[in-house]
Amino acid sequence: MGEASAMAGTDKTRNQTLGTAPIVVLVNPQLGENIGTAARAMANFGLHELSIVAPRDGWPNAKAFGASSGAHWILEGASVFDSLSSALKDVNFIYATTARPRGMTKEVITPEQAGSDMKARIARGEKIAVLFGRERWGLDNDEVSLADVIVTAPVNPAFASINIAQAVLLVGYEWFKNQAETLGQQTPELAALAGPGLQTPDTRLATKEELFGFFNHLERELDEAGFFKTGDKKPGMMRNIRNLYARAQLTEQEVRSLRGMIASLTRAHVKRKEAK
Amino acid sequence: MGEASAMAGTDKTRNQTLGTAPIVVLVNPQLGENIGTAARAMANFGLHELSIVAPRDGWPNAKAFGASSGAHWILEGASVFDSLSSALKDVNFIYATTARPRGMTKEVITPEQAGSDMKARIARGEKIAVLFGRERWGLDNDEVSLADVIVTAPVNPAFASINIAQAVLLVGYEWFKNQAETLGQQTPELAALAGPGLQTPDTRLATKEELFGFFNHLERELDEAGFFKTGDKKPGMMRNIRNLYARAQLTEQEVRSLRGMIASLTRAHVKRKEAK
Repeated sequence: MGEASAMAGTDKTRNQTLGTAPIVVLVNPQLGENIGTAARAMANFGLHELSIVAPRDGWPNAKAFGASSGAHWILEGASVFDSLSSALKDVNFIYATTARPRGMTKEVITPEQAGSDMKARIARGEKIAVLFGRERWGLDNDEVSLADVIVTAPVNPAFASINIAQAVLLVGYEWFKNQAETLGQQTPELAALAGPGLQTPDTRLATKEELFGFFNHLERELDEAGFFKTGDKKPGMMRNIRNLYARAQLTEQEVRSLRGMIASLTRAHVKRKEAK
Repeated sequence: MGEASAMAGTDKTRNQTLGTAPIVVLVNPQLGENIGTAARAMANFGLHELSIVAPRDGWPNAKAFGASSGAHWILEGASVFDSLSSALKDVNFIYATTARPRGMTKEVITPEQAGSDMKARIARGEKIAVLFGRERWGLDNDEVSLADVIVTAPVNPAFASINIAQAVLLVGYEWFKNQAETLGQQTPELAALAGPGLQTPDTRLATKEELFGFFNHLERELDEAGFFKTGDKKPGMMRNIRNLYARAQLTEQEVRSLRGMIASLTRAHVKRKEAK
């Protein structure tokens, strides 16, 4: 479906996996394309262990590789099983992604809750797996009954069909969100992702002295220009002006730029007039 | 790519839209399929207003409908624009989804933070939009400079390419998570008190048309004043200026005030000169 660096940039020099992660188990997937797009979503969020149970069209599947946007190492490393129970042999804890509750007495959690639960379990050395059902009807009740907990995403009840890759994406995203918070302490890039806030490339936030210098410059020129029609309105107007620039969290460079703009605007028109 | 009720069930009896939601703006999308899958992701999370800027293959596009898994009402209701600025005219607040920081001084937040920010803004009656870039290279720097804030998802830096529909899915998911928590139990008044963000007593946030009008006014006067010494530096300088004012989240009153300041600064010095 075409690439998009919609919310992310790729650094090909990095390792493609980021430590122990949950195993993704695709149960009886029908279309190779969906296996490929699921692998891509796994790669986006540092998931790398893929188990495929009874893929309808056999394995390997060229369409899966074609749809994976280059996440080939995940497909090449995939394990294929005849039955779900054999895929889960050495797993300690199982999450089943499903639609609404199946009339089973089993805990239902959100992908967000699953994300932090996964982090805690992996930290304790547990081996965990997440089950994703086939395209047409998801997981059947016997399959769900093998799981320890059900994961259900909050979606618009009027339009709740999401495909396998999107379900993998949401679980992977919630998993990685927790990872990014931890990993953020180790790499500046992830820190930038985990820790939001103002980016100030090649410059720094202005000091208050620089900012107040700009305010004084602006006030002087506005006075000169007769902007404050009556003296009693001036304090309130200047307060508003200071407030709006304070909200912008100006950098040192921007303060200089603003002062340059004022100087240009006030000087050039005089020159133009003189030239006439 | 086939249906999956992987984590959700559909109740066709429900309304297909769930009240006011952010506008999804696809900027210059190339493939109809991506417009369709983006619409599907919107429908999953109660988003319903779609704006398409300069779709490469024209509009309507049969491939978009084919790929939407039935989210036709979103495609049928889509608005198509020639330019991004015309798509944003009556919008109050803009989120740009991007890769890593673009060397701009602009706040970067996660989809999760965007989700709660969106909720607070919609509760206050603001009209908000989220920009998603073209498949190959996302949004360009001029487009990003129009936005109030950048949204970047934490992803595996070694494999960070996500497609448009997946970017829409993550933003929609975080938006809907907040909606789902509170649907039906909230009054706008309480939301306004509870939600963080800018208070705008006696006024309202400027529309983008008002803001862009100010930018044009300022640019014209700076041109006149010879502020941009060389033509090749101008685009970058204007971008920086737009960025700093975008960060301030100007109110309608402040935009008028800034335009008044420009008019004063440029006019008064001429008058003073004449008086001599």
